[in-house]
This record gives sequence, structure tokens and C-alpha cells, in this order.
Amino acid sequence: MSTNFINGEANTDYESLITPFLSSQRPLVNSTSQVAIVGAHVCPIESLDYEIAENDFLKQDWRSRGKMQIFQYVLMKWLLCFLIGLIVSLIGFFNNLAVENIAGMKFVVTSNMMLLNRFGMAFLVFSVSNLILTLVASIITAFIAPAAAGSGIPEVKAYLNGVDAPGIFSFRTLFVKIIGSITAVSSSLLVGKAGPMVHTGACVAALLGQGGSKRFKLTWRWLRFFKNDRDRRDLVTCGSAAGIAAAFRAPVGGVLFALEEMASWWRSALLWRSFFTTAVVAIVLRALIDFCLSGKCGLFGKGGLIMFDVYSENVTYHLIDVLPVLTLGSYRRHIGKLEGRCFTKFYLLVRFPFSLPVFFLDYHGLPHVNPYNDLASLIFNTNDDSVKNLFSKNTNFEFQYSSILIFFVTCYFLSIISYGIVAPAGLFIPAIVTGASYGRFVGMLVGSHSNLDQGLYAVLGAASFLGGSMRMTVSLCVIILELTNNLLLLPLIMLVLLVSKTVADAFNSNIYDLIMNAKGFPYLETHTEPYMRQLTVGDVVRGPLQVFQGIEKVGNIVHVLSTTSHNGFPVIDEPPLSESPVLYGLILRAHAIELLKKKAFMPTPVPIGTDALKLFYAGDFLKRGSSNGDKIEDLQFTEEEMEMFLRSTSIH
Amino acid sequence: MSTNFINGEANTDYESLITPFLSSQRPLVNSTSQVAIVGAHVCPIESLDYEIAENDFLKQDWRSRGKMQIFQYVLMKWLLCFLIGLIVSLIGFFNNLAVENIAGMKFVVTSNMMLLNRFGMAFLVFSVSNLILTLVASIITAFIAPAAAGSGIPEVKAYLNGVDAPGIFSFRTLFVKIIGSITAVSSSLLVGKAGPMVHTGACVAALLGQGGSKRFKLTWRWLRFFKNDRDRRDLVTCGSAAGIAAAFRAPVGGVLFALEEMASWWRSALLWRSFFTTAVVAIVLRALIDFCLSGKCGLFGKGGLIMFDVYSENVTYHLIDVLPVLTLGSYRRHIGKLEGRCFTKFYLLVRFPFSLPVFFLDYHGLPHVNPYNDLASLIFNTNDDSVKNLFSKNTNFEFQYSSILIFFVTCYFLSIISYGIVAPAGLFIPAIVTGASYGRFVGMLVGSHSNLDQGLYAVLGAASFLGGSMRMTVSLCVIILELTNNLLLLPLIMLVLLVSKTVADAFNSNIYDLIMNAKGFPYLETHTEPYMRQLTVGDVVRGPLQVFQGIEKVGNIVHVLSTTSHNGFPVIDEPPLSESPVLYGLILRAHAIELLKKKAFMPTPVPIGTDALKLFYAGDFLKRGSSNGDKIEDLQFTEEEMEMFLRSTSIH
Repeated sequence: MSTNFINGEANTDYESLITPFLSSQRPLVNSTSQVAIVGAHVCPIESLDYEIAENDFLKQDWRSRGKMQIFQYVLMKWLLCFLIGLIVSLIGFFNNLAVENIAGMKFVVTSNMMLLNRFGMAFLVFSVSNLILTLVASIITAFIAPAAAGSGIPEVKAYLNGVDAPGIFSFRTLFVKIIGSITAVSSSLLVGKAGPMVHTGACVAALLGQGGSKRFKLTWRWLRFFKNDRDRRDLVTCGSAAGIAAAFRAPVGGVLFALEEMASWWRSALLWRSFFTTAVVAIVLRALIDFCLSGKCGLFGKGGLIMFDVYSENVTYHLIDVLPVLTLGSYRRHIGKLEGRCFTKFYLLVRFPFSLPVFFLDYHGLPHVNPYNDLASLIFNTNDDSVKNLFSKNTNFEFQYSSILIFFVTCYFLSIISYGIVAPAGLFIPAIVTGASYGRFVGMLVGSHSNLDQGLYAVLGAASFLGGSMRMTVSLCVIILELTNNLLLLPLIMLVLLVSKTVADAFNSNIYDLIMNAKGFPYLETHTEPYMRQLTVGDVVRGPLQVFQGIEKVGNIVHVLSTTSHNGFPVIDEPPLSESPVLYGLILRAHAIELLKKKAFMPTPVPIGTDALKLFYAGDFLKRGSSNGDKIEDLQFTEEEMEMFLRSTSIH
Repeated sequence: MSTNFINGEANTDYESLITPFLSSQRPLVNSTSQVAIVGAHVCPIESLDYEIAENDFLKQDWRSRGKMQIFQYVLMKWLLCFLIGLIVSLIGFFNNLAVENIAGMKFVVTSNMMLLNRFGMAFLVFSVSNLILTLVASIITAFIAPAAAGSGIPEVKAYLNGVDAPGIFSFRTLFVKIIGSITAVSSSLLVGKAGPMVHTGACVAALLGQGGSKRFKLTWRWLRFFKNDRDRRDLVTCGSAAGIAAAFRAPVGGVLFALEEMASWWRSALLWRSFFTTAVVAIVLRALIDFCLSGKCGLFGKGGLIMFDVYSENVTYHLIDVLPVLTLGSYRRHIGKLEGRCFTKFYLLVRFPFSLPVFFLDYHGLPHVNPYNDLASLIFNTNDDSVKNLFSKNTNFEFQYSSILIFFVTCYFLSIISYGIVAPAGLFIPAIVTGASYGRFVGMLVGSHSNLDQGLYAVLGAASFLGGSMRMTVSLCVIILELTNNLLLLPLIMLVLLVSKTVADAFNSNIYDLIMNAKGFPYLETHTEPYMRQLTVGDVVRGPLQVFQGIEKVGNIVHVLSTTSHNGFPVIDEPPLSESPVLYGLILRAHAIELLKKKAFMPTPVPIGTDALKLFYAGDFLKRGSSNGDKIEDLQFTEEEMEMFLRSTSIH
């Protein structure tokens, strides 16, 4: 029904309809930017082409595909998923083994010195080894691949949303992410390995999806199979699922994490394929752990990927116990905002020296060296082992109020500071450690008023911190269950997650979105704000629109492509060229360059008979890698050519 | 790029483009039907309006909404989710308690008679009580609410896909589904309660979503809040998640089941909301079980919702054990096809007497009454307890080959037959029981060649049957984990599910889709077949298209509405009425009737000034319940009115 029901002409009516309703209420300044902070540098970003350009060549290609080709396509997808699962699980296992052995050696050497009462020497050795490890992590990150800094989850999430930033999935980034993560985690900084594993998984998937690294001449012909961003996006989604699966040995949690947190585009086939990928991860890890249990993996290779067994024959709790649990959940995590601020303020030079004093202030240096001291059992340990100690049950009287409180406060601030260094640094483990100490503290305060074990409070505290910072529900729930291996906790964990998410949602959005925002990635939400329904394209276009005519002068095209950075141009014929205005569609920059490259120009703007299907192939218009191919600057045209014409109608 | 690159006019070009490529290869007969089998009757079906008609009234309504109204809307959604969770968990608990007590009493009485060596009497009592229970289930289903027959999952899935069948969510159906499920399960038929619980959950959600049942005058004003199919669809999705959560006490599995199997339309907000719903279910169930543990729930009210604790301190298995597991997975479930055939052949009259001999052939009547007999421990038990026995570990020598084989074969065929009776009957439990006996049998065959416990084989066998029939991956994995409470099985279960799904997918689609297909529900897949990309609307329209003009004679509209059953009519002005052809949009039948009802007619086809916004409100065009409101037959027009004109432009 028209608003102006029975008055006026149909045409004036129509005009009143297309006028945006809320144009007066919106800011008219377009605030999107084409640069973002990738790792530690400001880089130009582009958008990925997740919508396949359905031009006639593509349709022709579809029609001509045989059964064999379709089978090959499907097979390649599954094969790549298998390879992603295999490689990611190998990397995850290697990561863990390296951390265990490096950190283990460090602790053994220091402990031995302390047993000989050489405390000064122990402190020196410990600090220097930590410093060296952090320096290695920071230097390789800063000088080889800045894109590898931080958690990596925001970058992968932005990629899956359609943001193409240079270098986030390069071979260098992959290398630095792996080595940097190992050294950073071994250095007793409070950083996690889950985020870096997700980024690693995505890197592996992206590199496999484009058939290797062109820069390092490591390409395989048979792998260069997927020629559009959409297929690569699906692989990267599977890769990020495999990352979580490898980091936490949580295959179902990994799939759900990819579904709930990472993917902006999800389809049911992807569930099935990412499940396959994480199943491969789970089975390969199982086999490797079998191998390690026979003692072939070095001093500390007990194969212990994170797995906090909070095992108990029967956890009994009653409704009354739910009350203290509620107070746990209502804790709101501030780290998100602080993090965002840290990030925008401390750049490389500010941050790096900043990480030095951390070691001297570091809680590892505190003179709690007695191995039977409760604080030492938390502090003089890898993060994983601290969590295990906090989660362990029947230890209600092992920790003192002061120890737990000191540990909680140090962890809280150290985790914020640690994330600031330029090195691969995840957020899961800091949240779990801090949350577990917080939960344990609450458990001790509640004390005998509840039947719950304090180890259980630690688990719930970790859940509340994770829920409050990451705002996931189902995936976090499954990850925590897979970590703690105790399904009976399920209702309590659900409750804690519900409360912590609800409370935290009232203040800000989740930590990855905050980081993405601080870094300037233009994240496109799935659902529009109500006022956006009234917007037209004209409202968001900035600067004069560059259009081409159906048959356009080559010189004009070259000029427009050279002077703008737009990626798409409407092709329009207006009177007097045609009877009424005709919109042929949108031509992509890459496609226009492809047309120019072939130089199928016409001397006059009058169409003559040449068959386009003989000149061009569907493959010409496909995107082989994550970066666009040729640049307009690389093409040379003679003056005659510049005066000729090119027809570019009906591309959509 | 145009196919005909440089030849011909732009217009002819355009025409060649819009011609479908594969029109010659497609069958031109439109095979969709407007009737389907709902329960046991053939009923007319309609499509739901999941796309909101964004007409000007709606836009105006959006603009005028205050913060308070938006808050109320959000609050109502959460409140309804809470209510759904609460009610479904209460029903689930009541269901279970009733089954335990009815079946328990039956077994106690029969056992006591057998202990007194009165075998004939025991057989009689047992058979008669089973017969009565089945008769009750069948009779109330057949005569009160045929829509309650069967699992209900296909109906709910069809609804969530957009198929509106009468009565599937009525108050009657809900009532019969609950009582019928209790009696059918108690009657020792091999039927499950998960499917009926999903249907029950969906019913509760649908009834709450439309504010009660009009027919039974049970409506609440404050509940009649959601006035479009889309909001009700979201609630039904949450309801189906709550159903699985209540049936298996698997809250995370419930959410994933709704996501993976049920919902055709999913958005991230729904994950969060359905998680909340199942959390409510989990917590309420926990509280009720607490209550029952204190012994207030009758003879058998130990609160045991299905929960097969396959608890073990450490399940150790090695890669070599994976081989026999693979053979388990490759079993392909035939029941799907058989089921489809059963369904289409046995209608009410054929089926009902058919269910009688079942009791005399019934394995419960076999003279294995010695309680220490291994077959009796499977047969003379509720389904849940049989599964518990099969899953139990350290029982490697308790069962004989012959017993397990007999049990497997009986279960296999009995489950097919049981589903055929007209009563609420789920498919989960039959698949689990049959699969568990099959897995145990394989485990016994493998014997000492593997380290795996035979109870574990039973779990994996159940997983393979479920995976082979239902083809879910992540959700089934989580449901099995939540059922067995053993996370260490995860890699094996994933492997079994992968193999069983892959093998089964090579033969047919999942069982619910087969049933939906057999029942004639037109299920719309998320992804189109490649050839469909070439189709135009014209290819699927059957019969002459009925269009209205922008200003149409009332008589014409009434005639078209009375003589066709179409639900939408394009509104088009063609020359000479307008300069060029104008498509104003599509007017829905309900909206056209609404326009007619208000009788805002014009004596001439020339528009005069009246403000539509004063005549109509956004609420007039909203859909309050699942069934459409007025019918064209209910409206009366005078002859003068029939000669007048109505303007219906710009509805989309």
C-alpha cells in the first residue's frame, strides 16, 4: 500500500517512496576507511569477492563441466580438509611438545639451583632465559612478520567477514606465528596458544587453498585448484576450527567456535566439512599421544595437550548451590576495554621496551621458591599446570586467601600487559588462569556455606571470564566441557555463561570485536540496524561515482582505473545512447584489467561481430590467489589504442 | 561480458541472456502439490510468510516505535523462551516419571507372578497390559489428533522450512502427543520419546507464540504479542531444542540438533536464545531430580531421565583399535527406505489391526523369564534399561552370541513395525537399542583382538545407527557424549559418525527427509541445484497467472480470490494505463481481503485524495496466528460495490 493513498500520480508516489526516511537523522559523513592495523602496521585493506560474479563465461563454464570435473572438485575440497586437519594437528602437537620441553628445562635448571640454595643465580638464569625467549618472539614478529602479532583471531574473523588485509595469511606469518607462539608461551608470559593456533590453522588453510606461497616459489600445480574467494573462505573456516581443536583437543568445540565466533558466512555443508577436519585433528593427536606415551618425545613429552581432568565420580550439587554460582557469573570482564585502549596507544616502539620491566616485576621472580608453598605451585609453573592446580578437587585447604588474591591480581594485570607485546599471544589461557583464581577465591569466601568443591568454583570462574570476554555460548560451553572432561558440570556452566554474557553485553561487545574495531577492520554485521533499511546506495557512496558506458573509450577506462582505487564500476547507458537508461551491471577492476590486457579493442564505438567466448575463458575472470593479479600500472597502451573503444556490457 | 560480444543490439543481447539455458533438459511438469499427509490424514498445506511484507505501514510502524516498545518486544521473546524451557522440562519430567511408574508397575506385577511360577498368568497380564496401553495410544491418536502420530520431527522440520499444515501445533495435538507417547513407550513397543518430545516442545512454543489456543478459548491477551510467522518460527526452533534437551538431558545437544537438523533459517541470535531455553530445561530438570531423589516421586521416580553412564576412569585405546570401529561405521541403515515404504502403504485401517499380532509375536512374550538369563535382561526391561545393560562395561562375558543376535534381529524389525502404528513414536531409542545390540555383537566377534570394552562397542554401534539414519554430525556427537557422559570416546564417535554418514549418504538421504518426502511435504533445500540457477519464475508457474492492476475493479478482485487458491498476486500496470510496464509488487491474499473488508472503494478508477494511513494500520496486515484470518467467502459485497474500484499499488 502506498503511503499517499489516493492522491497524485504513480510516479510522484514512487519518488516519495524511495526517499530514505531517516536521512535527516543520520550522520552524512562516511566513516569507513580503507586502512587497518594488521599486526602492528597500518596497511591498506580491500574487500574479498565472496559473491561470485555470475557472468556468461562462468555460466558457460558451469554448463560445460562434466561429472568427472565435479567429482574432482568435491574430492579436492575433502582432500584439502584432510590435509588441513593433518598439518594443523602436527603443528599443534609440535607446539606443545616444544613448549613443554623448553619451559620444562627452564624450570628444572632453576629448581636445581634453588635446591643448592643458589637463589640469586636461579633468579638470574630464570629472568635471562625468559628475557631471551620474549626477545626472540618479539624480534621475529617485529622484523619478519608484524601480521603475526597478537591473537590473530580478530584478523581471521575479519577475513571471514570479507576483509582482505595483506600478509595475514602469508608463509612468513605462519612461520613466525608458530615459532613466536612457542617462545612467548615458554617465556612465562601470561599468553595463550589457542588464538595463535587458530591463526595458524587459518594460514595453513589459506596457503593450501591458493596452492602454496608464490613468494617463496612453493607452489604445487595440483593444489592451485580453487579460483575464487568463496572456496578459500570455506577452507579458512575449517582451518580455524582445526586450530581450536588442536589447541584444546576439543574437536566439537572447535567446530562450534568456528560457527559461533569466526564465520560470517555459514552453510550446513560447512558444518559437516569442519567436523571432518576436526575429527582428523582429534584422531591424529590421539595417535601422536600414543606415540609419546612410549617415552620418545623428550623429557616432558607426556603428550599433555591442555586437558584439565576435573574428574570425579559424582559431582553432587543442589539448587541452593546455584546462588553463589550466580555471583560468579555476574562478574564483568574489563579486559576488553583496557585491551582496546592498550592496543591503540602502544605501538611497536612504545611497547617493546615496556615488556622488559615486566620480567623484573614478574611474579616468577618473587622469592616464593619453596616448592611446597601454595603460591609457588601456581606461579612457578607453566600456565597449563597452574590451571590444573587451581581446578584440582579435594584441595579446599591448600591455598591461602592471600596467595590466591595475589595470584588473581597479578594475572589480571599481567594478562593485559602480556597481550601488549608484539608477539603471538592468545587470550584464552589468560582468561582461564585469571578466571580460575577468581573463582577459587570466591569459592574460598563462600567456604562451608556450599557443598561445591573449590576446584569446581575455579572451573566456573574460568567459564565466567571466558564468557564475559568472548561472549560465546554453546561453543564455550563445549570447549570447557571438553577441557575439563566433566559433563555433570553442564547446567552450572550454562548458568554461569548465561549470566556473564548477559551482564557483559550490557556494557560492550566481545573482546575480538573490540580489537577488530580498534584495529580499524570494517566488520560487517549480519543484521542491519533498523535505520539502515531506509538507506539507498547513494547514501553511502563517497565522492563522485565513476561509471562506464556500455562501449567506452579505452583512454577513459585507463584513466579511471589509474586515478581511483575503486574496485567496481557500474556500466550504464543513458539517453541518447539508448532509449531509456540501462544498467548493465557492475564491472570489477580485475575484470576490466583483464579486458584491457587482451586488447580486443574496436576502432569505432559501433559494435562489430567477434565472438567473446573465443577471446576469453571463464578462467580469465576467476581469482587465483588472495591478492589481485595485475595492476593497471603494469599495462602499456599506445596512443592509438587509447583512442579505441571497449565494450563491457552485461557483467554482473 | 556478453556472450555475443560485439554483434547485435543491446536489447536482443539482453533477451538471449534471460532465456534459461537448460530449459530443454528440465521436466516441464510442475510436480509440487498442495496437500500432504499430516499424521495419518491428507490435508491441504500452505506456505508460511517468513519474509516480512515490508509495506509502508510496517515501515511507518517501525519508525514510530519507542524505546519502551522495543524493550517490551525483546523482553517478551526472552520471557517466552523461559516459559518454553520451563514447560517443556516439566512435561519431559512428567513423561519420564509416568513411563517409569507405569512400566515399572507392569514389570513388578509380572515378575511377582513369575516368582510364584504362574507363567501363564504373567504372560496374560503382561500382554493385556501392553495391549491396553497401545490401544489407548492408538485410539486417542486416531480419533482425537491424527497429527500427533509418528515422530513429529518431520512435521516440525517442514514447519520450520515454511510449510503450514493444519493442526500440527494445536492444543489437541499437544495433549495427545504427551499422553500417547507415555502409553506407547510404557507398552513395551520399541518406540522412542525424543521425537515426540521435540514435537511437544514445538507445540508448546507455537501455542505460546500465538497466545494460546483460540479453539479452546485458552488465550491470554499479553501473550498475543507476536504477529508474524517469523517470530513464531524462532520460538518453535527454541522449542524443538528444548524437546531434545528434555528427552536426553542433553542441553547442548538440543541446541545443535535444532541448528543442524531442524532449522532451515538460522541466525546467530537464535543460538543464544535456544541456548538460554535449554539451559532453563537443564536447570529445572536438575531441580526436579533433586526433588525426586528424596523419594517423593513414586515407586520408580529415581529421576532417571535417560543417561547411560558409561563411566570409566580411563578409556585406553590405540590406533589399532580403530580398525574394527571402522567396520561398525560402514553399516548402512536400511530402515529409512523401509520406513518410507511402510508409511505410504499402511494407513490407519491397515495399520491398526496390524499392531495387534505384534503383541503375540512380541519378544516380551517369549518364555525367557529367568531374571538371570542374559536375553531376559535385555528383553524384559524398558528400552532405557536395555540400553544401559548393553552399554555397561566389564560385562564382556555376560551375553551370548545367540542372545545378542536374536535381540538385534527382533529390535531391527520391531522398530520398523512399531513406527508404523498410529501413535506418537520416536526413532532415536529404536536406533540406539538396535545399534547397541549390533555394536555389542560386532564387539563379541572381534573379541580379544581388540582392547576395547564391549560396552564401548555398543555405544559406537548406537552411534553408527544414529549417524546412518539421521545423518547429523556435530549434534549427534554431542548428544551421544551427553548421553554416555564420557568425553574420551569423542574421537572414536566422530570416526564412526563420519564413516556411517558417508556410506549412508551414498545411498539415500536422511530418514526425516525420507518421511517428509513420503508424506508429501514440499521441503525447500537451502541450496539450489545448479540447473535451477537458469530458471525464471515463468518456468515454475502453473496455470494462467492472475494479476491485478494498480487500480482494480472490486468485482474482479473478489472473483479472482474466490476462484483461485493462490496466496499472492502481482500488481502490474501495463500500457496504456502507464507509459511503460510497472510492477508495483505482490499483494498477499490476506492483505487483499483486508483491503476489501475496509471497503475503501472509489466510484471511478481515477485516484482521489484520501490518506491510507488513516484508514489502515500496520496491525491490519500482520498475521496473528498460524492460520490465516478471514476468508473471501465470509465477505459480502453489494452490486454497486462490485462495480467500484480499489487501489492496491506498491505492496511488496
